Amino acid sequence: MIQGLRHIIFGSPLATSQIALIRLAIPLAFVIVSANPLSSVAYAPEEMIRALSGTGEEAFSYAVFIALAIVVLMFIVVSSYSQVIRAYPGEGGAYVVARQNLGTSLGLVGSAGLLVDYILTVSVSTTAGVAAIGSAFPSITHHQTELSVTFIILLTIINLRGFRESAQILAFPVYLFVVSLLVMVVVGVFRYFTEGTPAVASPPVLAAEAKDVGPYLLLLAFSGGCVALTGIESISNTVGIFKTPEARNARVTLLVMGTLLATLFFGVVLLAFFFKIGPLQGQTLVSGVARGSFGVNVFFYVVQFSTVFILVVAVNSSFSAFPRLASTLARDGFLPRALSNLGDRLVFSNGVLVLAALSMILVLIFQGDTHRLIPLYSIGVFIGFTLTQLGMVVHWRQSRDKGWQRGLLINGVGAVVTGVVLLVLTVTKFASGAWIVVLVIPLMLLLFRAIRNHYHAVAEALSLDHYAPPQRAVPRVVIFPIGAVHRAVLPALEYARAIGTRVEAVHVAVDEEASRMAKLRWERLETGIPLTIIPSPYRAVVRPLVDYIQEVSRAYPSEHITVVIPEFVPRRLWHQLLHNQTALILKLALLFQRRVVVVSVPYHLPR
Amino acid sequence: MIQGLRHIIFGSPLATSQIALIRLAIPLAFVIVSANPLSSVAYAPEEMIRALSGTGEEAFSYAVFIALAIVVLMFIVVSSYSQVIRAYPGEGGAYVVARQNLGTSLGLVGSAGLLVDYILTVSVSTTAGVAAIGSAFPSITHHQTELSVTFIILLTIINLRGFRESAQILAFPVYLFVVSLLVMVVVGVFRYFTEGTPAVASPPVLAAEAKDVGPYLLLLAFSGGCVALTGIESISNTVGIFKTPEARNARVTLLVMGTLLATLFFGVVLLAFFFKIGPLQGQTLVSGVARGSFGVNVFFYVVQFSTVFILVVAVNSSFSAFPRLASTLARDGFLPRALSNLGDRLVFSNGVLVLAALSMILVLIFQGDTHRLIPLYSIGVFIGFTLTQLGMVVHWRQSRDKGWQRGLLINGVGAVVTGVVLLVLTVTKFASGAWIVVLVIPLMLLLFRAIRNHYHAVAEALSLDHYAPPQRAVPRVVIFPIGAVHRAVLPALEYARAIGTRVEAVHVAVDEEASRMAKLRWERLETGIPLTIIPSPYRAVVRPLVDYIQEVSRAYPSEHITVVIPEFVPRRLWHQLLHNQTALILKLALLFQRRVVVVSVPYHLPR
Repeated sequence: MIQGLRHIIFGSPLATSQIALIRLAIPLAFVIVSANPLSSVAYAPEEMIRALSGTGEEAFSYAVFIALAIVVLMFIVVSSYSQVIRAYPGEGGAYVVARQNLGTSLGLVGSAGLLVDYILTVSVSTTAGVAAIGSAFPSITHHQTELSVTFIILLTIINLRGFRESAQILAFPVYLFVVSLLVMVVVGVFRYFTEGTPAVASPPVLAAEAKDVGPYLLLLAFSGGCVALTGIESISNTVGIFKTPEARNARVTLLVMGTLLATLFFGVVLLAFFFKIGPLQGQTLVSGVARGSFGVNVFFYVVQFSTVFILVVAVNSSFSAFPRLASTLARDGFLPRALSNLGDRLVFSNGVLVLAALSMILVLIFQGDTHRLIPLYSIGVFIGFTLTQLGMVVHWRQSRDKGWQRGLLINGVGAVVTGVVLLVLTVTKFASGAWIVVLVIPLMLLLFRAIRNHYHAVAEALSLDHYAPPQRAVPRVVIFPIGAVHRAVLPALEYARAIGTRVEAVHVAVDEEASRMAKLRWERLETGIPLTIIPSPYRAVVRPLVDYIQEVSRAYPSEHITVVIPEFVPRRLWHQLLHNQTALILKLALLFQRRVVVVSVPYHLPR
Repeated sequence: MIQGLRHIIFGSPLATSQIALIRLAIPLAFVIVSANPLSSVAYAPEEMIRALSGTGEEAFSYAVFIALAIVVLMFIVVSSYSQVIRAYPGEGGAYVVARQNLGTSLGLVGSAGLLVDYILTVSVSTTAGVAAIGSAFPSITHHQTELSVTFIILLTIINLRGFRESAQILAFPVYLFVVSLLVMVVVGVFRYFTEGTPAVASPPVLAAEAKDVGPYLLLLAFSGGCVALTGIESISNTVGIFKTPEARNARVTLLVMGTLLATLFFGVVLLAFFFKIGPLQGQTLVSGVARGSFGVNVFFYVVQFSTVFILVVAVNSSFSAFPRLASTLARDGFLPRALSNLGDRLVFSNGVLVLAALSMILVLIFQGDTHRLIPLYSIGVFIGFTLTQLGMVVHWRQSRDKGWQRGLLINGVGAVVTGVVLLVLTVTKFASGAWIVVLVIPLMLLLFRAIRNHYHAVAEALSLDHYAPPQRAVPRVVIFPIGAVHRAVLPALEYARAIGTRVEAVHVAVDEEASRMAKLRWERLETGIPLTIIPSPYRAVVRPLVDYIQEVSRAYPSEHITVVIPEFVPRRLWHQLLHNQTALILKLALLFQRRVVVVSVPYHLPR
């Protein structure tokens, strides 16, 4: 029945032979690689302007200049990754590039950063999506956390079913988002120059008096805006989905995506500047800008819903990227091997579950508040950026492939710039949450190492070379623990007699009357097997038994001791609760005893 | 280590021989039997007056008359139980009296009522105690639920340690409560007649306009006050703790306790009438009355703290009564047998845990609000009252012992009166929560029956009479499932060969490469044992194995099939997480297969 329910929710199992790889033309491949980076337009401009909100109306002019700086940064990162694709047309994620060129340690640092980043993509995009719905329907804003968690659970189920990233299906939300935001920017700019600043329903929450604008505040705003760059790196892992020539097509797509990202990001900031829309209560900045451009009509709702859609698609991209990276690490022995198991539906189910659990924990801790989650977000990405670019610098210097000087220059600039930004991010966001990431990444490295060492030790210990069996693992000495003497005991008794030459029954005396009965009945059975009664003044059953078995085991230091346990299996599962779980606890306790073989002989109640 | 921690928290185990029974003189025995009934003075008057608060100042005059009615009811119940003690000097709880005279079914109804009542005693007394603390220190009132749960956890730990109801220790809080409340009543009455009504700090929350007082409202108030009778019945279970002549001493104590209960209950209501103190915000009625009598000084705080103390003692009495009744029911086969196990510390630990869990759930559902819990409370008690008295009526009519006519009269009146009150309670409190009890008690009866039937069926099935072994339970056909071929497999292989005459190794092919390796290595071992490769297109391991074992089992319909599982045991417990749990899941799945014996041969990593 449980099996059936599982198939309804998660779908029936798929055969291994059903794995297939589809190659896509640029317009469809664009959909897969762009959802994640483009979706950050939903929150990045707001983060930037929010940081400046203490400066009053001045904020908007600063915002425009900082947005320009971020656009420049985008082009640096896009050019750098264009080089990565050129050099690693196969798979060029941070793990591969950094590991190959900078050594395993830095490869792991990059992976840790990316894993953290994927988890945060899920948390941030989900909460941002819920906020976008809340901007259209304010009544839900009190249930942000619950709604976000519900969304994550739904996406988890979908991904456990094995969501084929069907580009045909995803094309609609992604293009809808691109088109509706482009229209919004164009209409907004047009109306601003023809009609002037529109009346905004709710005035922005800006400080009444302008504070002094120091360089620190500007850096803070810059850090906030940098979250717009998250997701750009993902294309370097997915070159394989492009039609040949893969590398060229991927680079074209990257350039198109970069241009769109810059346009939309800058457009939203520009409109906020024109309309004087700052951080609003219970509404996203994009929602405010859309109201300014369109008023509240069908266009406004299209913008809101397409934002939600693209955020969902972005979350989904993490659900495919995280388990894939985790399984690579698991196969190399840095994470538990279970993460590399392909589940029923040909997805790395365990990875999906781990991602879902961790991102939900984050949502719960930060109570579904996008703004509070973002300081954790961009650091992981920029660690990945910097290490990849550094790796590329080493790569070009060593390989000296065609065009290595140009590559070296571009990736060199990329490495320096992203490195500096990483520093800025760490400093400005440290207190507001980045310290968590700074703490977690070294811990992850320690974990990777500990796991790797364990697997190494096991592999060595299990090797068949130079094997000499240490003890005779054949049955001879058999211990047969019994509680009451009844029908369920008999098949086990027969079994014990058949395998052992020195069989001994033992009974732990918890209750005087019960022990007397057991002894009497045992004698009546006339088995010829001695029954040892172990006294138990403290009424424990398992402890005295285990002690006794250890004693026997010490008496036969070169043999395995066999413990035959009669196991009574009731007809229904809930009936199990009505019986003492002694057999179960005993088996668990004996698992950690050396040289003890456990045999359970079941007795099923007749139907 | 876990063992050590357990001993620190719960104490080291006690030997069975350490059970001892101490008999107490009246002044100390009084302490044990009175804490629970007397503690209801902390909330019963308030419940009554609250029900009347809609009637304005009129409320207080009505309250005095209703309180008088309840005092009469108290004396009827006390006299009735005095007869119970006379007739059943051994043990005369609702279960025994009702079962013996009215049959098992009604005995079980009475027990169900009492079990529910014990659970509610814990919830109600804890929340009332927290409310009493809150009256003295208002800052804690926002954490009622958390504090109540914390208290229950602490009391659970104390009771798992095995709290000897040491009358010497409990004497202090119980007598402090009796004395301080008596002093409060005397001082209050004296000051009222010499100084008139004192100015009360916070005016009572009464309706501005008096509503019509119908008979329904008066019955509602009466029902609220009836909670004062809870706990009186407990003396009939504990006659055994009195010095000889037990019955006489117990009856004297019962009378003293009844008189004190009536005095304190009526005294508090009378003072509320004098001082015009109604239900207060964030303060208990007793606290308001104490302020009126003493003002806020050391006497006020003594009243508050002694209230908390006696409520804690009352909770504790449930912690000894519930597990005892549950173990009696378990021994008779109506509840899971685990409830009759004496734990390490000579207490019925499982009963203590069940009580703690259920009462905490109630506190959480009702958010620590005494007033909302009380409608559930008194019904269970009055079911017990009514059935006990009915049982006594039958008893006197059948036994015709000395003085049976007097007994018949008293218990007859008791049965009728408590029966009518039970009806009133059910009707007036049905909507505000009593329906839960009305629903739960029949469900409990169904559960009792189902459990009993299961144990009966099992006992019959396990009986050794007419036993003919259905299948030969000796090893011959052995299946040996392996994943990879490595060192951990070898001891198990040796064992399998030693016990079986037809051994077959099986391997589930999940990964093509791994299967090839396993096959190769197996051949290299030259065991002479055939290796069957089971294809698994859906990558499941356990399901195909179980299916295969079933197939083999069908081929040998009159034998047990032995499955030898090589079990790899890592050095540290957390390392287990790094390995697949296939062996564990396989053992679980095989437990429910008939005629399959499971042998686990451990391989411990060398230290």
